[in-house]
Amino acid sequence: MVSVAILGFGVVGSGVAEVLSTNAEKIAHSAGQEIGVKYILDIRDFPDSPFKDLIVKDFSIIENDPEVQIVVETIGGVGPAYEFTRRALLAGKSVITSNKELVATHGYELLQLARERNLNYLFEASVGGGTPIIRPISQCLAANEIDELYGILNGTTNYILTQMIQNGMSFEEALKQAQENGFAEANPAADLDGVDACRKICILASLAFGRHVYPDSVPTEGITKVTPSDVGFAASGGYKIKLLGRAVKRPDGKAACYVGPHLIDENNLLSNVEGVFNGIVVHGNAIGSVMFYGAGAGKLPTASAVVADIIDASKHFKARKQIDWLDADPNSLFDPDTLENRWYVRCRADLASAEKLFGNVTALSNKAAEGENAFITEKMSKAALEARLKDLAPLSVFRVLD
Amino acid sequence: MVSVAILGFGVVGSGVAEVLSTNAEKIAHSAGQEIGVKYILDIRDFPDSPFKDLIVKDFSIIENDPEVQIVVETIGGVGPAYEFTRRALLAGKSVITSNKELVATHGYELLQLARERNLNYLFEASVGGGTPIIRPISQCLAANEIDELYGILNGTTNYILTQMIQNGMSFEEALKQAQENGFAEANPAADLDGVDACRKICILASLAFGRHVYPDSVPTEGITKVTPSDVGFAASGGYKIKLLGRAVKRPDGKAACYVGPHLIDENNLLSNVEGVFNGIVVHGNAIGSVMFYGAGAGKLPTASAVVADIIDASKHFKARKQIDWLDADPNSLFDPDTLENRWYVRCRADLASAEKLFGNVTALSNKAAEGENAFITEKMSKAALEARLKDLAPLSVFRVLD
Repeated sequence: MVSVAILGFGVVGSGVAEVLSTNAEKIAHSAGQEIGVKYILDIRDFPDSPFKDLIVKDFSIIENDPEVQIVVETIGGVGPAYEFTRRALLAGKSVITSNKELVATHGYELLQLARERNLNYLFEASVGGGTPIIRPISQCLAANEIDELYGILNGTTNYILTQMIQNGMSFEEALKQAQENGFAEANPAADLDGVDACRKICILASLAFGRHVYPDSVPTEGITKVTPSDVGFAASGGYKIKLLGRAVKRPDGKAACYVGPHLIDENNLLSNVEGVFNGIVVHGNAIGSVMFYGAGAGKLPTASAVVADIIDASKHFKARKQIDWLDADPNSLFDPDTLENRWYVRCRADLASAEKLFGNVTALSNKAAEGENAFITEKMSKAALEARLKDLAPLSVFRVLD
Repeated sequence: MVSVAILGFGVVGSGVAEVLSTNAEKIAHSAGQEIGVKYILDIRDFPDSPFKDLIVKDFSIIENDPEVQIVVETIGGVGPAYEFTRRALLAGKSVITSNKELVATHGYELLQLARERNLNYLFEASVGGGTPIIRPISQCLAANEIDELYGILNGTTNYILTQMIQNGMSFEEALKQAQENGFAEANPAADLDGVDACRKICILASLAFGRHVYPDSVPTEGITKVTPSDVGFAASGGYKIKLLGRAVKRPDGKAACYVGPHLIDENNLLSNVEGVFNGIVVHGNAIGSVMFYGAGAGKLPTASAVVADIIDASKHFKARKQIDWLDADPNSLFDPDTLENRWYVRCRADLASAEKLFGNVTALSNKAAEGENAFITEKMSKAALEARLKDLAPLSVFRVLD
């Protein structure tokens, strides 16, 4: 019998308790022993919950109970979550988390703590919600040198863009609907501005390339500037607009990450990742491209990923999983603006002016966008693009996924 | 240092040697120690290969060398591959394979042998080529009761169907092109008739549902009856025709599998899985639906999956991976023909006759198919369908993926 303590009884924490209880038999079979929740830490009371007797208010009860071998942190943020994770590891307990902000911000330090004590710090649920991605990168693709990964990492923004594309909504209408349906928070800034996707691409890049990539080194643009006009122009060329996080490792070993809206060809598998779903593509030197797709958030899908980590940790109390990386090194990064790709540009200028600046361009059309034009350039770096754009006063500029 | 012996120096076997050599540093980091090839068993000589000095002709050299801890079987078939796998396990060596026929036919028995000796018998490469699927089901989804899985499991047939859909080729033309490009064997019957997909859905169902499903309990239909006329009718309704293997577990715990062509809505992610790629959807009670996508065959992708298993086995010499199942039990199966779905029917009869038999149907159109009609029925079992079809003399009958 393995005893688990859950920190934070919110959406994910209560989902973990529910999955451990509902699928107890299957989980015991997979883990080779029963797994039970001994404590749930929360400042609130839950008099109507079947788990109400497990609630404690003082972390030191968990910290000092040697029976607790695994701590599940679903508090979120970098305040108490950070403190309790450190203390749990120092107390000799493996820690499982769904907290992408904490892993992206303090992952290296916490992994180091875990390594020194021969414990596991696992975070499958921090990226892709329920979609398996951390374990596939670290195990299934372990034979590969990974040189690129990119994907739709944020369900809220993908839901909004899907509504704009499929139902012709404005950004504001789609956001309102997302909030009404529980797919966007009351304060959705971290999603809309790409901050959430940024944290996730940092975690994936750190894992795949072996060095911590911190969020402040990742140029990040959200979806607030995407308009119905852009959606229409993109559609005329067979493209959908999606927010992607992308990480690239050059042959010289240097890496770069960025987050921003992209035009994706509708024949690309990622273009059919709709609504709150996530899709992540990984490219390795032996395997080529693989894609992982699933629910990017939600109580039970996220809990499913947390519980997979609990099972894994319970089978590896004395053996570490190969989920680890070195600290950041500024010399291991390159500027993502030097990456070359085609660009989508919307402007009031006519196409003749665009061709004077860019040479060959692919024109797009949108009858609803009066007085506007849009086109796709040849491949070039961001610097080369901006040098040519300065006389064009563009309304929108997005990358095209090549 | 872990010593590996590779049985069979064909496409996959030579790919394994190549990946172990090319990515040696990354692999040693993942495994925590170096992994080297000590022997390669083949009846042929390879005087021009960099691995020529490792070739041996007598399996007993490998069998009797206690330094060899892992045997990689890439011979294929159920003759020598079966014998050598048994002997390797009896000699205390873990075995890794890409051989779907052997796992589908003798998997239970070989897993039992491995279990009795606390060894691992791993076969990630047997389904999906390089696409991670065995480990995700057994580990990433370990918290879930899995109730359904289906997918495009055979790259050859998907390549042929893609050519028919995208380029209007006939089946015969597309097959010829597949053979010229090395995507179909000289004798392609096992692919075209669905036998290969059948073996793969058997392996996935055995793993996901916990009991061996043998190929002879799986109704299997290939793609040889799919015509350009069907492709055109399907397209008019927004569908693509794909060969799927599908496994369903009912709430009463009984399971059923089958293989056959399906019409798939073009908004479904699977419909964009083109060419030799594979895509596999798994549905669990916590996670909902997830999809895994990647190269379904090929030297390096398949080798990538084999080497991931080698790394895993090298980290678990004294601990078994949770990849195991019980033997088949006829009482645990139900007849897949009782599953209800919509059906695609092509015939010479007019739609009025069809509606007399079926009530509401959705008509499809294809100007190139003179004198033919096609329609989609409401949901019904195969028995209900066939009772109504007998007066219609249908030309094609395929399931619709609902």
